[in-house]
Amino acid sequence: MKWWGWGDPERRLELSEGAIAALRSEVGEAEPEQRASLESVAIPAPRPLPPAIAEAVGAGAVLDGHEHRVRRAAGRSYPDLVRLRAGRLADAPDAVVLPGNEGELARVLEICGREGIGVVPFGGGTSVVGGVEPLRGAFERLITLDLRRLQGVEVDQTSMTATMGPGLRGPEAEEMLAAQGFTLGHFPQSFEYATIGGFAAARSAGQASSGYGRFDELVTSLRLTSPVGTLSTLKTPHTAAGPSLRELALGSEGALGVITQITARVRRVPERRRYDAWMAADFTSGADIVRTLAQSQSLPDVIRVSDEAETRTSLGMSGTGAGKRALLGGYLRVRRRDHGSIVICGWEGEPEAVERRRSIGNRILRSGGAAALGSAPGRAWERGRYDGPYLRDELMDLGYLVETLETSHEWSELRHLYEEVRAAINAALASQGTHGLVTCHLSHAYPDGASLYFTFIAARRPGAELEQWRAAKSAASEAIVEAGGTITHHHGVGRDHVPYMRAEIGELGIDALRAVKERLDPAGIMNPGKLVP
Amino acid sequence: MKWWGWGDPERRLELSEGAIAALRSEVGEAEPEQRASLESVAIPAPRPLPPAIAEAVGAGAVLDGHEHRVRRAAGRSYPDLVRLRAGRLADAPDAVVLPGNEGELARVLEICGREGIGVVPFGGGTSVVGGVEPLRGAFERLITLDLRRLQGVEVDQTSMTATMGPGLRGPEAEEMLAAQGFTLGHFPQSFEYATIGGFAAARSAGQASSGYGRFDELVTSLRLTSPVGTLSTLKTPHTAAGPSLRELALGSEGALGVITQITARVRRVPERRRYDAWMAADFTSGADIVRTLAQSQSLPDVIRVSDEAETRTSLGMSGTGAGKRALLGGYLRVRRRDHGSIVICGWEGEPEAVERRRSIGNRILRSGGAAALGSAPGRAWERGRYDGPYLRDELMDLGYLVETLETSHEWSELRHLYEEVRAAINAALASQGTHGLVTCHLSHAYPDGASLYFTFIAARRPGAELEQWRAAKSAASEAIVEAGGTITHHHGVGRDHVPYMRAEIGELGIDALRAVKERLDPAGIMNPGKLVP
Repeated sequence: MKWWGWGDPERRLELSEGAIAALRSEVGEAEPEQRASLESVAIPAPRPLPPAIAEAVGAGAVLDGHEHRVRRAAGRSYPDLVRLRAGRLADAPDAVVLPGNEGELARVLEICGREGIGVVPFGGGTSVVGGVEPLRGAFERLITLDLRRLQGVEVDQTSMTATMGPGLRGPEAEEMLAAQGFTLGHFPQSFEYATIGGFAAARSAGQASSGYGRFDELVTSLRLTSPVGTLSTLKTPHTAAGPSLRELALGSEGALGVITQITARVRRVPERRRYDAWMAADFTSGADIVRTLAQSQSLPDVIRVSDEAETRTSLGMSGTGAGKRALLGGYLRVRRRDHGSIVICGWEGEPEAVERRRSIGNRILRSGGAAALGSAPGRAWERGRYDGPYLRDELMDLGYLVETLETSHEWSELRHLYEEVRAAINAALASQGTHGLVTCHLSHAYPDGASLYFTFIAARRPGAELEQWRAAKSAASEAIVEAGGTITHHHGVGRDHVPYMRAEIGELGIDALRAVKERLDPAGIMNPGKLVP
Repeated sequence: MKWWGWGDPERRLELSEGAIAALRSEVGEAEPEQRASLESVAIPAPRPLPPAIAEAVGAGAVLDGHEHRVRRAAGRSYPDLVRLRAGRLADAPDAVVLPGNEGELARVLEICGREGIGVVPFGGGTSVVGGVEPLRGAFERLITLDLRRLQGVEVDQTSMTATMGPGLRGPEAEEMLAAQGFTLGHFPQSFEYATIGGFAAARSAGQASSGYGRFDELVTSLRLTSPVGTLSTLKTPHTAAGPSLRELALGSEGALGVITQITARVRRVPERRRYDAWMAADFTSGADIVRTLAQSQSLPDVIRVSDEAETRTSLGMSGTGAGKRALLGGYLRVRRRDHGSIVICGWEGEPEAVERRRSIGNRILRSGGAAALGSAPGRAWERGRYDGPYLRDELMDLGYLVETLETSHEWSELRHLYEEVRAAINAALASQGTHGLVTCHLSHAYPDGASLYFTFIAARRPGAELEQWRAAKSAASEAIVEAGGTITHHHGVGRDHVPYMRAEIGELGIDALRAVKERLDPAGIMNPGKLVP
């Protein structure tokens, strides 16, 4: 991964001249950025750690070189990238420690608890909410605990479950499962770099979550190692033995301990995958179609509806030539619609089941007034499903702010939430003297509601990027809270959402989480400054 | 409800002469029981309560008459009924307090916390694991908090959710929902008396849980009032904002506070209901069929497979003449099978969807070697779905011990678990000098596993009923723990399963629960002696 951005440094998704022109006409000119060099990134000198840590994991598994530390000093949010590109990091971990197994990891946590050393668990480092930021809190010393050596996949073919190490990246896990004919079906945009442990710790939701379930729904049992011991849940499909401790570990974001083992349901690799695009009359009718699909148990495995602005942007600024042509081709056939909303439906599974389900879904789409755009733009969407963060790098190179945020609500409140958040972001960007492009799609649908995923773009304010970002992020977050939505449907809490946890779970909810944290992590070393205010 | 048993005192399900003869040939003669009269039940005199409680709820909402106290002194487990019938209760609450709203309830908890008065929350009183037993713990005074006045149903037709009070009984909630065209689809055997609050607090699973979801899966948000305040989760379909506090309140069994409001997903009342019976070659092949259905996302809404012993018993001792005739009629047509396993499949929903799903399911059943018994025995099962506890009263009148218990495990371990538990119960009953009939069915199926529900019957040991019961229950529980199953799939922990919580969640898991309890219930007044060791 690029140290200053996303993905393979050799891979670029250059925007076409036309796309850049369309962008400029939407949000104005921007001042291109200069990136700092890796060597020029200034971070504090590492503070020495007790030798017991290197003794626990082996000297080769404690890294304190400049690049190792810089690479674990930030996640992949917009403000993270602003700081990395500028070469201005507030801090970095004193060392990166890579335990080779659960026993070594437990020993490191025990030492850090005793010595008062902060610990930031680190999987793929893809957090977009500051989840891996090296905040020291009350501690002088801080390590990043890189989990990449905790790998391994064991499949129970009869029960169709896989027991996995937290350090496996998405593609690594899928490759090992595919060798036995299985898949998790979990494909978030961060799939190429994010890890199994991160999926669980941050309650990830993949693009096919409507069909396969969110990651927290796939997990049947887990082990969480805290500084005082290991919590382990039974490998059974369900239990009524009290409150769910599995659901306490899921979403704990490294603040209670480290998830060291995950057992999750797997499915057979789908024989058929059909991705179709449709054009709904507008965002409201697109959302109504998804509600009907969800409430009649007829959801596709992948569902998303772009609002009018995202639809227009996809058509005008698509990064992949083929996808754009495919979309435009379909669009032209239904161009009587001026303000359409693109709907993507993905169907996966056994051929017969796919065709049966798809035919029921298509009937509902047509009843809702959607027009078929064919499967070419659907396949184009599928090909570009991980492109978002690559495009962000291109846009940042051109001098643009690009950020995404997400929420969810019940169907009856969703339109209000949508309008309030959009208005709040627009107003905040205007207050910074910039004109924003705010787009949104609805995805992760449920019978009772859905998530909304916003993207906003504006010309950056050179030298005041973080202030500009903060204004928009705060305004959006406050609008979400005001409208009763959740502060996050699948990005997690990290550092950025901590101020909204009171609105989310109340003072007593925070007290309850604190009580658990104090018991499992009495010294408070686990991921300081995250999750709990 | 009968004070000494289950259901309407006017309703009896008398066993036929033939059924009694069949039973005697299985487990031998038993000595019929004499029941004590209500007046003769000896309970300690009520201890006086601070007047502040009556001031909080109104004098009419504090009941301390003999019958009120006896009726809240026990749940509906076999040992509960043994004690009630014998008129030998260890204790009873000092009073029954009925708060009229959440504010009154909060005030009562606050007073009890300050004064050191134990509180047992009480919905339908149907616990079969000692969940409402009036254990005083360290407290001299103890009240039962009867939630029946906390009613009310509010439906969000767009989001298809219903916000409900915890005191509603199953039929009351269904009637109010049906008036608007909706259903929860939650029908446990205790449906007629159990409450919405109890379903949530004890993680109930209904007979149609494979289709509609368990109750904990239906709940989208809730309020829990503890002695120090109220915890409330957002009404959104999902959040990734940290560990799930909803999943901490679900299953809390009154030990953390009282669930005072529940929002749950509802469905449209099904237009069509098709209940079919099939005969699988044996229990193993029946279980394989269910696994195939579950792993291909083709489960019926209701699924259960009786083992050979339960199948034989259903045919030989069916309590309802029509059901028996229907079953036997079907059976005779396939009587070439000596050791068959009855499979019940229930399909509910829109007619087209029901027929489509049913046809896919039937194909899998046939491929698995099952023979169709037609819909008459399926409908008979449906008519008799709440009969279990009525039959227990009849069997206890005749002098028999009747108990049920349940667990779950992954498919790869299910047969081993089944054999071990059955052997353990048989051996324990033999050690008591009695010959047991142990039957089992598989239900609540998942892609990764299923639950097993055991029923056992033996002639009681007059005067030593509890000792005999304890021997069988302990042996079964230890066998479950040994085989790695969960101590309960849907009955909950209550008092009876507390000793097995260490095996279930480990010492650190118990510590984590204790930490939460100490924060929400610092005086430890909530449901003493339950849930947490």
